[in-house]
Amino acid sequence: MLNQQIISNFSVLSEKVREVKPLVHNITNYVTVNDVANVLLAMGASPIMADAKEEAADIASIASALVLNIGTLNARTVESMILAGKAANEKNIPVIFDPVGAGASAYRNEVTGQILKEVKISILRGNLSEISFIAGLKSNTKGVDASEADSLNDAESIAKNVAKKYNCAVAITGKIDVLSDSCRVFKIANGHAALANVTGTGCMSTAIIGAYASVTNDMLLAAVSGVSTMGIAGEIAYEKAKNLGTGNFHIALIDAISNLNSSMILERAKIQ
Amino acid sequence: MLNQQIISNFSVLSEKVREVKPLVHNITNYVTVNDVANVLLAMGASPIMADAKEEAADIASIASALVLNIGTLNARTVESMILAGKAANEKNIPVIFDPVGAGASAYRNEVTGQILKEVKISILRGNLSEISFIAGLKSNTKGVDASEADSLNDAESIAKNVAKKYNCAVAITGKIDVLSDSCRVFKIANGHAALANVTGTGCMSTAIIGAYASVTNDMLLAAVSGVSTMGIAGEIAYEKAKNLGTGNFHIALIDAISNLNSSMILERAKIQ
Amino acid sequence: MLNQQIISNFSVLSEKVREVKPLVHNITNYVTVNDVANVLLAMGASPIMADAKEEAADIASIASALVLNIGTLNARTVESMILAGKAANEKNIPVIFDPVGAGASAYRNEVTGQILKEVKISILRGNLSEISFIAGLKSNTKGVDASEADSLNDAESIAKNVAKKYNCAVAITGKIDVLSDSCRVFKIANGHAALANVTGTGCMSTAIIGAYASVTNDMLLAAVSGVSTMGIAGEIAYEKAKNLGTGNFHIALIDAISNLNSSMILERAKIQ
Repeated sequence: MLNQQIISNFSVLSEKVREVKPLVHNITNYVTVNDVANVLLAMGASPIMADAKEEAADIASIASALVLNIGTLNARTVESMILAGKAANEKNIPVIFDPVGAGASAYRNEVTGQILKEVKISILRGNLSEISFIAGLKSNTKGVDASEADSLNDAESIAKNVAKKYNCAVAITGKIDVLSDSCRVFKIANGHAALANVTGTGCMSTAIIGAYASVTNDMLLAAVSGVSTMGIAGEIAYEKAKNLGTGNFHIALIDAISNLNSSMILERAKIQ
Repeated sequence: MLNQQIISNFSVLSEKVREVKPLVHNITNYVTVNDVANVLLAMGASPIMADAKEEAADIASIASALVLNIGTLNARTVESMILAGKAANEKNIPVIFDPVGAGASAYRNEVTGQILKEVKISILRGNLSEISFIAGLKSNTKGVDASEADSLNDAESIAKNVAKKYNCAVAITGKIDVLSDSCRVFKIANGHAALANVTGTGCMSTAIIGAYASVTNDMLLAAVSGVSTMGIAGEIAYEKAKNLGTGNFHIALIDAISNLNSSMILERAKIQ
Repeated sequence: MLNQQIISNFSVLSEKVREVKPLVHNITNYVTVNDVANVLLAMGASPIMADAKEEAADIASIASALVLNIGTLNARTVESMILAGKAANEKNIPVIFDPVGAGASAYRNEVTGQILKEVKISILRGNLSEISFIAGLKSNTKGVDASEADSLNDAESIAKNVAKKYNCAVAITGKIDVLSDSCRVFKIANGHAALANVTGTGCMSTAIIGAYASVTNDMLLAAVSGVSTMGIAGEIAYEKAKNLGTGNFHIALIDAISNLNSSMILERAKIQ
């Protein structure tokens, strides 16, 4: 049964982002950064990308949310992530962390641990492989895409445990998305398989979560809203572009986010 | 009243770029770099991106214009910008500078000052916040997007003063764009609000200015032509894509630049 | 006369990529990296971009192919390319090298030589200027786009000589593409001039070759298949988008790759 309360809160939040136009600071990868900036603009937020250690803390301090994404991490940007994260923590600015490819290399694993240790994370978003790695389970990460062995079986308990361990909201995205802040659990049935055919839909989701986290104190609501936004946009984009190909699906996805409004959310969100 | 002379010169310049296919060297940010390369190709120029200090000067020396953009600056690329800028100066190759986010962090402010001190800039393009910072005025830069407090009020005197101070052409882009080389002043009424919904339209304008600067000695004409090109393309793109969303608007913008010709310029340019 | 055997083998290979979903590791430039990831996904492969020296070898070791592209090389990423290349060599993972802009700066020339010396390359893809530089001939590289002086005249002998010298397959792309492994020579007449109006079609071709090299031991077949894939997709994209502009052509190109199947290959491939 759908949870009408959280869906209603999500729809209100979407309007608030367009009203407030929050500044969202991203230290992210160079593969999907253009799409990340464009989806933030499409939902009414204001993106800033700044990854020099000389300014990472300054920029984080004037932003309303900080998004860290290790898709193409290196020693220079990891240092900036830590500096920005600590600055955000000092000012109680929410930090959203996307541990792209955690489990795929010793370096990613080490950096993931370092960020979780040195920065207080508000929201963690990843696929089941990545969050399983963080949970201390054997992960079967194959590159940066979700591995085929991913399943819903243990997602709920993993989300709850990781949320408890790091005192944050956790979003495990997959066919059914599972989100928890250790107390509450939500499952989202929005989305379309075609989202996996475009790079960066995970990164975009994480940034969208960041925009929502800018305008609420409820981090799980922000995470649920962000994941469902990408899911709904994926459904709409598929309806528009299914006969065209993945290039047009990609463009239709940005279109859908730019056109999303509260009534569409109330109509389409499938959040339990 | 429209200035038919500059509009005519701009239309001639647009044809010249397609004929000459100038090589434009960009040291720019990783957020919008793909669009920058694609708009340069769309207008008939040849883009090259090269930011290693080992080759920055060599590449600048074989280019017809150098575009510096500090959108995602770091110590490594700033060093390359200075090296490339000095090499361009030695060969009288025009240098176009986009001080993205000047005023937003101490580091951006410092680097902006350093570039203006060590490199002779031919054309400076920014929004009112950024150029106000350079003018020594209190800027209200909020991230890298133009702040809402931007207004036309002082733009003309700021453009003239900065142009005089740095002996260059200055383009302040906004609802009405104001450009000056300290003697002449032009105002451009092309453009559409939708341009602010796609990341990089400022970066693209700056690169387009670079292509025009490759084929004329009149730096203010190059700046006016570049800013008006983006404005006209924005109007055309909005006509094509207004019912679709910001994803398709983005694509229609590149289309419009690729289709722009001298007769469309004569018909649409609103330059006073 | 068309070579039906290689066309048939290419069509089988295209199905195999969709079946196996090989992980392709790319250390590439930040200009075209999003398109590279999206064309790999479009053809059914799984892209991973990772350029930190701390993980380059680890990621290469779990991939099915490694693609090195020096479009925006710097000291940090060149070190990672060498580390990844050596790790791939140890595991007999094919390494595909795109010497973007070789001949355009002393640094690119030096790095190109260094990579060819320290890493065993399986497939080399470039335009005639770039491959001529590698052949030791005077190159007239102007930036990163093919120079106008490129011609088919010497392409065949250059491809054969370079293939022999480095014991690899060589693809020289141009109006007519010429490929050789020193014994065999293929010429491909697919493609459209519009491909030169979008940045990264060369980079995308190289990555596509990487995906094919993941699922065959015949490196020349992989190269021929990759180059012809881009050519066929360019023809289809032009048919769809010719009246729209280069923005929509770009998107139609990704669409075409995502829709490509073995029967379209059998119908359209022009390989001699």
